[in-house]
Amino acid sequence: MSNPMDMALEAAEAAAGRGEVPVGAVVLGPDGRVLAVAGNEVEARHDPTAHAEILAIRAAAQQLGSPRLEGCEIIVTLEPCPMCATAISFARVRRLEFAAYDAKGGGVEHGARVFTQPTCHHRPEIVGGVQAEKAEALLKQFFATLRDPKS
Amino acid sequence: MSNPMDMALEAAEAAAGRGEVPVGAVVLGPDGRVLAVAGNEVEARHDPTAHAEILAIRAAAQQLGSPRLEGCEIIVTLEPCPMCATAISFARVRRLEFAAYDAKGGGVEHGARVFTQPTCHHRPEIVGGVQAEKAEALLKQFFATLRDPKS
Repeated sequence: MSNPMDMALEAAEAAAGRGEVPVGAVVLGPDGRVLAVAGNEVEARHDPTAHAEILAIRAAAQQLGSPRLEGCEIIVTLEPCPMCATAISFARVRRLEFAAYDAKGGGVEHGARVFTQPTCHHRPEIVGGVQAEKAEALLKQFFATLRDPKS
Repeated sequence: MSNPMDMALEAAEAAAGRGEVPVGAVVLGPDGRVLAVAGNEVEARHDPTAHAEILAIRAAAQQLGSPRLEGCEIIVTLEPCPMCATAISFARVRRLEFAAYDAKGGGVEHGARVFTQPTCHHRPEIVGGVQAEKAEALLKQFFATLRDPKS
C-alpha cells in the first residue's frame, strides 16, 4: 500500500484533473487504518468549505459515528488554511502532517497561526514539509496552466 | 416576516432543544431574500464542521450554484469562530452581522482575528453586538443546564 502522503498526493493530482486547486488529504484512525481520502471539491460541489481536509474530516467522523476524531492523524499535501486548521482542532485530531508550506493562505505556520492562539483548545502534534517538493510541483503546474491555458 | 436575526435566534433555540450549542445563522441573497437558515448540528450529524454558519453557507451556495456568495449577508447569533470566519471570507460574503461576542471561541474580534490577517483576501462589512442579550441568554441557559442537568 502507498504511504498516506502518497495517497494524499494522488488525491491532489486527481483534484487538479477536475480543475480544482490540487490539495489532497487522508485521515488515519487510531490504529493507522485509512478512514478517509479526499481532494479539493470546491468548484464541483459549489461549496466554499469543500477543502480536502474538511471533506476528509467529515467522512472520517461519519465512519466513527462521532464529531471527535480522538487519536486520529490527518495527512495533507498543503499547510491547512485557518478554516481547516480550526476544524482539525475541533475534531481533536492527534497529529497533523503536511507537505508544502503556504505563506499566502496557510493558517498553521503563517497568518492566523490558529494553533498558537490562547483561544485554541486542542493543538495536534505538527510535522510540516513532508514530501513538499511533489506537492509544490503539482501546485506550480496547476497555477501556471491557469495563467496560460495553452501550455 | 421576522427580521433575520430573529430567525437566527429561533434556529439557535431549536438547536438547544436538540442538545446542540445554541447558535443559528441566516444567509440573505443580494436581493435580501432568505437563502438559508441553519442551527448548529455538530452532534446530530457527527460532524465537527457542522456549525450553523458552515451549514447556512453550504446551503446558500447550493441555492446559487456557486461556491461564491457575492453580495450576500450572513446573520449569526454568535461571533464566528476562526473556521467559520475563514469560510465567510472564502465565500466572499458582503456583510457579517452577529449578536453575542465570544471572547473564548470567537475568531473575528478575538483570538485569530481572521479578517485582520494580511493573508485574508476578502473582509466583509462587520457589525457585532446586534440583539446580543437574547443570544447570550440562550447560551447561558444552555451551559447552566449542562452543568446542572436537574435545573
